[in-house]
Amino acid sequence: MASLDKIAILGTGLMGGSLGLALRKNGYTGLVAGWDRSEVLKQAVARGAVEEGFAELAATLQRARLVVLATPVSTILRLLPEVFRLAERGALVTDVGGTKRNICRLARKILPDGALFLGGHPMVGKATGGIGGANAELYQGCRYLLVGDQSMQEEERVREFVSWIERIGARPLWTDEETHDWAVAVVSHLPQLLSTALASLAWDELDDDDLPIRFAGPAFHDLTRLADSPFDIWRDITQTNAENIERLLDRLIQRLDWIKMRLRESALEEEFAKAHELRTRLRALQETLDSQPFPRQEDSR
Amino acid sequence: MASLDKIAILGTGLMGGSLGLALRKNGYTGLVAGWDRSEVLKQAVARGAVEEGFAELAATLQRARLVVLATPVSTILRLLPEVFRLAERGALVTDVGGTKRNICRLARKILPDGALFLGGHPMVGKATGGIGGANAELYQGCRYLLVGDQSMQEEERVREFVSWIERIGARPLWTDEETHDWAVAVVSHLPQLLSTALASLAWDELDDDDLPIRFAGPAFHDLTRLADSPFDIWRDITQTNAENIERLLDRLIQRLDWIKMRLRESALEEEFAKAHELRTRLRALQETLDSQPFPRQEDSR
Repeated sequence: MASLDKIAILGTGLMGGSLGLALRKNGYTGLVAGWDRSEVLKQAVARGAVEEGFAELAATLQRARLVVLATPVSTILRLLPEVFRLAERGALVTDVGGTKRNICRLARKILPDGALFLGGHPMVGKATGGIGGANAELYQGCRYLLVGDQSMQEEERVREFVSWIERIGARPLWTDEETHDWAVAVVSHLPQLLSTALASLAWDELDDDDLPIRFAGPAFHDLTRLADSPFDIWRDITQTNAENIERLLDRLIQRLDWIKMRLRESALEEEFAKAHELRTRLRALQETLDSQPFPRQEDSR
Repeated sequence: MASLDKIAILGTGLMGGSLGLALRKNGYTGLVAGWDRSEVLKQAVARGAVEEGFAELAATLQRARLVVLATPVSTILRLLPEVFRLAERGALVTDVGGTKRNICRLARKILPDGALFLGGHPMVGKATGGIGGANAELYQGCRYLLVGDQSMQEEERVREFVSWIERIGARPLWTDEETHDWAVAVVSHLPQLLSTALASLAWDELDDDDLPIRFAGPAFHDLTRLADSPFDIWRDITQTNAENIERLLDRLIQRLDWIKMRLRESALEEEFAKAHELRTRLRALQETLDSQPFPRQEDSR
C-alpha cells in the first residue's frame, strides 16, 4: 500500500518500540518516526525500533498517515488534542491504552474534520521492560482489541492498519468502549489487583527466614507475576475504569467472604465446579482463536 | 544402599505415579509396589510407575522399608493407623499431603515403637492429570518440604530417603508443622482460592458472546491456571488448614477493600511498591536456591 509511507509512534517503550520492530520485521518499508524522552529515543533508534527520533510532536507527526499513541492512559488523554491539531489531514490516529471509554469519548469530542480515531488495546500480557524489553514478537498471538462500529471497520485507512496488526501476528477483535472496559476489568484489571494484593500481603507476612516465600512453588510465582507491572500504567487504568473495577472488586470480596465461611464444609465444590467450567470454555476459545487462519484482506499488500 | 529394596506407594496417581517413574529413572533398582483402585493401578503398572500393584494394604507394605502415602489428606488420615499396624518394624512412613499439622499430630499419637513418620510436601505446582499425567520430571526443581526436627534429620532411614528426593531433582527444605501450614497457606492455599474465585466470578459474568473471556490474554490464563485443580484435594486442604486460611482471607479481603476505596487516588502506589519488593525478594531466593549445588550425602550411593 502506497499510502502508509510514514508511521509516527508516540512513546517508544515496550509497546511502541516492539510495534516498530514488529512492523519492520514483517515487511513494512516506510518510515517509522518516534517521539519520547531523549534517552528512550536514543535506545529506540539504536535498536532499530524507529528510524528517526524527535523531541517535537510536530516534526514527528509531519506527513505521518498513521499515528500510534503508545504511552500510559493519562499521557494519551493529555496528548490527544495536540495530536489532532498537528496531525496530517486524513491521518488515522490510534492508541494502545488499557482503558477505552475516557479516551474514545475525548477523541469523539475533539475530533477534527477528516481525522479518524480508532481506539486500540493489544492484550500483550506483559507491561514491564521499557524499550530494553521491546521485541518484534511481542504482538505474536495477542488479542488486539479495536473499538469501533461497522463504518469504522470499512474505512480504507482502518483496513490497512488492521492488515498490519495481522501481519505482526496479532488477532484483531472488534468491540465497543463500554464492553471493552467491562471485559478487561474482569480479564486484566482484576487479575492485576489480585496479583498485587497477594504479593503485598506476602510482603507483610515475610519473616527473617524469608518465610513464607522461601517455600513458594510455581503456583505463587504465576499468581504474583503481574505484580511486577509498573504503577505508572496502573494508576491511570484504575482511575479511568474505577466504576467497573469497584463493582467487580465488591463481587470478588463477597465471594471470598463466602468461601471463608465455608472452608470447613464441602460447599466449595460448586465454586470449584464453576471455575472448572470457565477454564474449559477458556481453553476451547483459545483453541478456536488460535486455529483460525488470520483473515487476509485482498488489499493487505 | 542395600536397605531400601522395596518402596510402597499408596496412591499411584499424579504424585505417587510420578515418584515411581522418577525413582526408576534416577537409578532406583529395588521393587516399587503400588496400592490404588484397580483401574489406576493397571495404568501405573503399564506405565512402569510401579512393578506390582496390590488391592490389599498388607501385601503392598510387606517388607517395604519406605512407605509413601500419596493420596488426598483425608485418605492419608484414614490410612495412617492401618499403615502403622501393617508396616514392617523399622519402616519409614512418609506422605505428600498439602497440610501437615493434622497428619503429624495423628502420626505422633499413634506411632508404634520402632516406626518413624516423616511429614512431606513436595510443592510441584500442578495437581491435575492423575496417573495419565504422571511423569519422571514432576519433582525436578520442586521444593520438597519436610517436617521434622534435628534428631529426625539424623536418622539413617531419613537421610537415605532425602538422598532419593535430591536424586529425583527436588530440593529438600526442613520445617515444622505449624510453620509449614502457615507458610503454604500464603504461597499455595490462598493462591488456589483466589484463582478459583476469579474463574468462578468470570463464569458468572459470562455472556452469550463468550465475553469477557473472549478477550482474555496471558494474564487471565496465568491467574486462573490453578482453578483447574480438583476439588477432592482442596476440600481436604481447606478443612485441615481452615484457621490459617481464614485469617489470611480476612487480611486479603481487608486489603482488597482498601484498594477498592483508593482506585481514584495515587495511594495504591505503596501497595504496588510492596508487591515489587516481594517479587524482587522472590526472584533472589529462586536464584539462590537454584544455583546451590544439591547437598550430596556421602552415603547417597
